[in-house]
Amino acid sequence: MTATPGLIPRGARNPGSQGALRHLNQERLVEYLLANGPSTQAELARGTGLSTATVSNIVRDMAAKGVVATSPVTSSGRRALLVQLTDTGDIAVGVDFGRRHVRIVLATLGYDVLAEEQVALEPGYDVLEAVAQASALLDRMLVAGGHDRQAVLAVGVGIPGPIDRRTGTVLQGAILPEWVGITRRELEDAFGFPVVVDNDANLGALAEVTWGANRGERNLIFVKIGTGIGAGLILNGQPYYGFLGITGELGHTPVAEHGVICRCGNRGCLETVASTSVMLESLGRSGATTTSDILRRGLEKDPAVLRVVGDAGTAVGQAIGNIANVINPELVLIGGPLVGLGDALLDPIRHGIRQNAIPIIAGTTTVRVSSLGDRAESLGAAAIVIQGALAGND
Amino acid sequence: MTATPGLIPRGARNPGSQGALRHLNQERLVEYLLANGPSTQAELARGTGLSTATVSNIVRDMAAKGVVATSPVTSSGRRALLVQLTDTGDIAVGVDFGRRHVRIVLATLGYDVLAEEQVALEPGYDVLEAVAQASALLDRMLVAGGHDRQAVLAVGVGIPGPIDRRTGTVLQGAILPEWVGITRRELEDAFGFPVVVDNDANLGALAEVTWGANRGERNLIFVKIGTGIGAGLILNGQPYYGFLGITGELGHTPVAEHGVICRCGNRGCLETVASTSVMLESLGRSGATTTSDILRRGLEKDPAVLRVVGDAGTAVGQAIGNIANVINPELVLIGGPLVGLGDALLDPIRHGIRQNAIPIIAGTTTVRVSSLGDRAESLGAAAIVIQGALAGND
Repeated sequence: MTATPGLIPRGARNPGSQGALRHLNQERLVEYLLANGPSTQAELARGTGLSTATVSNIVRDMAAKGVVATSPVTSSGRRALLVQLTDTGDIAVGVDFGRRHVRIVLATLGYDVLAEEQVALEPGYDVLEAVAQASALLDRMLVAGGHDRQAVLAVGVGIPGPIDRRTGTVLQGAILPEWVGITRRELEDAFGFPVVVDNDANLGALAEVTWGANRGERNLIFVKIGTGIGAGLILNGQPYYGFLGITGELGHTPVAEHGVICRCGNRGCLETVASTSVMLESLGRSGATTTSDILRRGLEKDPAVLRVVGDAGTAVGQAIGNIANVINPELVLIGGPLVGLGDALLDPIRHGIRQNAIPIIAGTTTVRVSSLGDRAESLGAAAIVIQGALAGND
Repeated sequence: MTATPGLIPRGARNPGSQGALRHLNQERLVEYLLANGPSTQAELARGTGLSTATVSNIVRDMAAKGVVATSPVTSSGRRALLVQLTDTGDIAVGVDFGRRHVRIVLATLGYDVLAEEQVALEPGYDVLEAVAQASALLDRMLVAGGHDRQAVLAVGVGIPGPIDRRTGTVLQGAILPEWVGITRRELEDAFGFPVVVDNDANLGALAEVTWGANRGERNLIFVKIGTGIGAGLILNGQPYYGFLGITGELGHTPVAEHGVICRCGNRGCLETVASTSVMLESLGRSGATTTSDILRRGLEKDPAVLRVVGDAGTAVGQAIGNIANVINPELVLIGGPLVGLGDALLDPIRHGIRQNAIPIIAGTTTVRVSSLGDRAESLGAAAIVIQGALAGND
């Protein structure tokens, strides 16, 4: 007999809720179809243990929503109904707002990228103007691809700031103060589509286990080092959102006991010593003014840049080490504009982890760069729409 | 449309695994029976969406294992089979080894406590001797209650140290160095029963959501402040074990930049400033030599004790604040021998959390003492056996 973390503690779920039950059963059918391809209703029932009545009810529903298509076939000499996940031309849109860019990806429910574009935004941009720009870009991409607006299921939007999931509102603490207070509703008005909002680092983490090389990873931290430093978590194989949805605020780990006061009000937070803006301030005398300068000079082994990246990386690693002691991840993925530096960035991070994590944790936590580069957040934003559609939310 | 953290990312599960599928379906039946009481097979099929064939197969299996009992009844004039979770006299044993005690609880699968006893252990006890003492105590408790040894399903054992779940071995870092290297197999030999081993703080957390006032809580940290400081996590409604099972090592959060070297090899860990042993060292001149002294004098408002508890509590709170920024728990429960101090302990912890957590996290995280006091770990140890039995592991 072994421990069974899998069994939900009593009362943690409400098994009596018909909606929740239907949702669970539908998830199971979708998973089966993703794993096994087109299947007859009989195969679905055998493969999932659901009754044929349950299967045919849910299939009818999903077919009405266009999530699956059904076609009559003959199986072992009998008439049967073949069910397959549709590629009806439905489009999931992922939008990633950064500090200086917006990136948009169009994808199918089968995780195929149809189009992908990025445009620069002025630093300190007006948020609603940027959203209007993004909406115009999306419209152009749809027209260019010959896609009907009706095909768009929803727009997933990644924002560099904490999101209160109770209300879909961007909270104090966003990298761009202008984002604070923006609601999902305002974004829906601007895009003219249903919108799902999430934090950019959460979406980066989700992208890694859906699109990336780390598909199927069960315990992973995605750490984005940019103007802000945030983390997205995959725990027990699922995106983790905690109580309010404000998770992964790694940038506010105190790392400098007598450091400066952070914009959050606390002292010596990681962001005050390791964000790309602080790196650029430190490098003021060396003439580096953008993260591209840091990247280029780092690759040329400029000692000033390597020192700054090393100090910042060590601090990031220390903060990760604290967290690793508690959540024991298998994998830490680093994202953001500096990942092209490779080991020049990763080695200091690993050093910082060793300083703060207990030896067995430090020794078994793998640190790599994101497999998706600057596409991670927008792909994650599309993934959240795809997952919502496959789960039959509406 | 909303985001769906509930849908497992592609590949994260293997829906093709028949064992995993059967396990999932069995969990669902057990949950239904826990929520709805005795039910006919037809009701189970309707209530879960499983086919009647699947239900009757799983019920037959569970009946053979004694997890459920079946009895023929008449329902709407038809013959039907009533299924109920059994109280066949099966006993789950929970054993909690502390630094100075071992506590044993006998419980039914229905979470009823049959017997509960605690005996003192000599500080610095020999581990195998203590295990033999516990085994003898368990035997006496079984005899005293008139319970057949056959009735014992398994013994859950809580140990104050990290456990490698791959091997069931106690790792370096255990509060009592003698525990290091002890394996589940050795405990099974000593007790003469199947054994499940887990970390004491993990079991404390599990007890809170199974036996305690916090049943159903989805995101909770249980922090045990004793000779060591460890945390157990309930995330998304389930006990969280991470990659290797070594989670919640809160005691090794660095909180003193120029502090002393910890037994883990790092500098300034929380345990070096806030464990009960360090509190007692600080109080050396005041004549307090046990945690009971701290508790008693703290309740008498002795200023030296309040200062030491205040400093330690603040440091614990700072470490919790770091973690709360990342996992955004709804609830933090404090356990260990000092919880009788109430707000004299909790207020400094809350203060520390406010220092290190961003305002919205600090403002929405509730801090309370454990609802189960010194029973938490042993009840959690029994709960892990109960959950294993209900999930049909063997």
